[in-house]
Amino acid sequence: MSRDRTAPLLLTPGPVSVSMTTKTVMLQDRASGGDEFQADLACARDYMVSLVGGQGAYTAVPLPGSATYANEAVITGLVPPGGKLLIHTNGVYGDRLIEICAHARIAHATIRTPPFTPPTADQFEAAILADPAITHVMVVHCETSTGVLNPIEAIADVCRKHTKGLFIDAVASFGAIPIDAKRLGFQAVTVSSNKCMQGVPGIGWTVVQKTALENAKGNCGPLVLDLWDQNQHMDRTSAFRFTPPTQVLAAFAQACREHAEEGGTLARLERYRRNWRRLVDGMRQMGFATVVPDECASPIVATFHNPDDPAFSFNALFEGMKRRGFIIFPGRLALADTFRIGCMGDVTEADMADAMTAVAETMHEMGITSLGHTDLVAAD
Amino acid sequence: MSRDRTAPLLLTPGPVSVSMTTKTVMLQDRASGGDEFQADLACARDYMVSLVGGQGAYTAVPLPGSATYANEAVITGLVPPGGKLLIHTNGVYGDRLIEICAHARIAHATIRTPPFTPPTADQFEAAILADPAITHVMVVHCETSTGVLNPIEAIADVCRKHTKGLFIDAVASFGAIPIDAKRLGFQAVTVSSNKCMQGVPGIGWTVVQKTALENAKGNCGPLVLDLWDQNQHMDRTSAFRFTPPTQVLAAFAQACREHAEEGGTLARLERYRRNWRRLVDGMRQMGFATVVPDECASPIVATFHNPDDPAFSFNALFEGMKRRGFIIFPGRLALADTFRIGCMGDVTEADMADAMTAVAETMHEMGITSLGHTDLVAAD
Repeated sequence: MSRDRTAPLLLTPGPVSVSMTTKTVMLQDRASGGDEFQADLACARDYMVSLVGGQGAYTAVPLPGSATYANEAVITGLVPPGGKLLIHTNGVYGDRLIEICAHARIAHATIRTPPFTPPTADQFEAAILADPAITHVMVVHCETSTGVLNPIEAIADVCRKHTKGLFIDAVASFGAIPIDAKRLGFQAVTVSSNKCMQGVPGIGWTVVQKTALENAKGNCGPLVLDLWDQNQHMDRTSAFRFTPPTQVLAAFAQACREHAEEGGTLARLERYRRNWRRLVDGMRQMGFATVVPDECASPIVATFHNPDDPAFSFNALFEGMKRRGFIIFPGRLALADTFRIGCMGDVTEADMADAMTAVAETMHEMGITSLGHTDLVAAD
Repeated sequence: MSRDRTAPLLLTPGPVSVSMTTKTVMLQDRASGGDEFQADLACARDYMVSLVGGQGAYTAVPLPGSATYANEAVITGLVPPGGKLLIHTNGVYGDRLIEICAHARIAHATIRTPPFTPPTADQFEAAILADPAITHVMVVHCETSTGVLNPIEAIADVCRKHTKGLFIDAVASFGAIPIDAKRLGFQAVTVSSNKCMQGVPGIGWTVVQKTALENAKGNCGPLVLDLWDQNQHMDRTSAFRFTPPTQVLAAFAQACREHAEEGGTLARLERYRRNWRRLVDGMRQMGFATVVPDECASPIVATFHNPDDPAFSFNALFEGMKRRGFIIFPGRLALADTFRIGCMGDVTEADMADAMTAVAETMHEMGITSLGHTDLVAAD
């Protein structure tokens, strides 16, 4: 992997920076019916299934668009007529699942926990027992809006006990946090082509149990979102139903090869953990405070409180970081006094150390030389 | 525009070859909330509206996915509850509009004409008079599966007379064949980011009348396909609702700049006409026969009969052309004994001349030295 250092490095919740070798495959025009393109598609589908250890029982289905399309496709297709979906939310992406259901008029119930509080298995059990109409459960694995990691193993146990179908929005975790199909028995996980898989954005992936997908036949109103139809067409023809984003798919296949070369999910997790550690330690040494307790934080993105110092402005921090080659992100609306720095993508611990220096320099530019009792000097 | 001559040139109905300068912008990682990305989005939206002369009355809405997503979004959003859509078809892409309606259970009626027969205004008038439930009409401008150009002006006149809303699938024409909003009064046209606009595939565009879009509020079940919601969000925030395909959008903005630099729609039409003329004349000189009568053929793609010679095989032609740097396309299922050569994309008359030489050489390889009374020598 090599990175174009002429452009700023994205330290955001996504789109994330990806390797130059991944982007370079997009310089070639490809016929969507060509041998090379079909081989890339087959290779990427197989790799996605292998990452959850789902060979044989699962299939991977790419839908052009984004991971939100994959979420809507799963909900619209796999919740049958008469079914009801229990959704947990503690952030923007859980809320989006609710929005999908409300918009498409799909029966649903919700469990809401505060932004930095993962749900408990008991909450799921109580909700399932309280509403016998519930047939399926959906949970966001890693809330990109905060970095909170939700306990999918405990939730999967409840689903198995009560034979409810489980969908996991693994958009910001898949590829860096292990997800085991046999352990979890999920019906579907949804994934971004970008984020931890480090492809470019433009495809939403679903890794779905074949039996659940077969039951979904005929359920999905929108043709373009019909996972069953997309899957049978791909299995039969080795091609997409409709003109695919050829560059995005080719880049994704390259991203899968680079994921494997790095050592797979655990190796990527270790790199992200080093990034996150360097980031959080560095920021704390400067006097910044994280919002999410470490025990439920994921090494995907970290959220920081804006310092109380009246000289601080997020815009000044953003612009100073950008001039130094780093793009950071504001907090989401409900967390207006926070900002986020991402650890995903083609980013190393050395990049994080450089970013910490850039934070210290930018704070000095604002005239802030200490936060609380802490002198603002980037550790190295 | 410069082309990567290390990869084969795509002479297909799409994805088409695009300029290296368009592809090169994809080498940069972009934040979806960044100033440059938002400027690209605004610029592309304005340019799409300007291409139909729709400033003020129309808005352009990109949906990640493909043009089929745009078609489904228009049908699902703009045909109101209780409405009914009259669809004309004379090919694969007209059939796909019917498939969208059937799949999503949207009331529709159809006019079917043979593959090489454009419909007449009288047929639309009769269908509208026969079924008062019809509220909207949809027609494919240029049938990519054959190259047939359907008469949208005459159809628009019928729609205006009977006050029916008109949707035009301009996926394979927009950018190379003039489409005038004031003349046609359409409610929506749908467009591919690839094809005649010469961006990379991955976004379906809709240029839609603002008043029609306002009436669509709340109609569209699928959140991801809701054009009204996408448009209001973009107008308000200058951003996509969900993670956009940043590389595809940036490439599209560059493609718009290159479209303008070439001289706009009419200049592009002239180049495609020269490509088509060179192709059709060259193939006829070698003894090949076109399937579509010239008077209803578009300079987008040409369909040829397979020669009767028993030594001919499409696969051999395909492979021989590929070895010589050109990708051509088989006919669609119902036209199995035909093949297609496209004229769209970053392709010049000189490329077409080279392609004709490649056809002649490949036919010689098959042992075919003449077709009918014609010696197989590429003209130059």
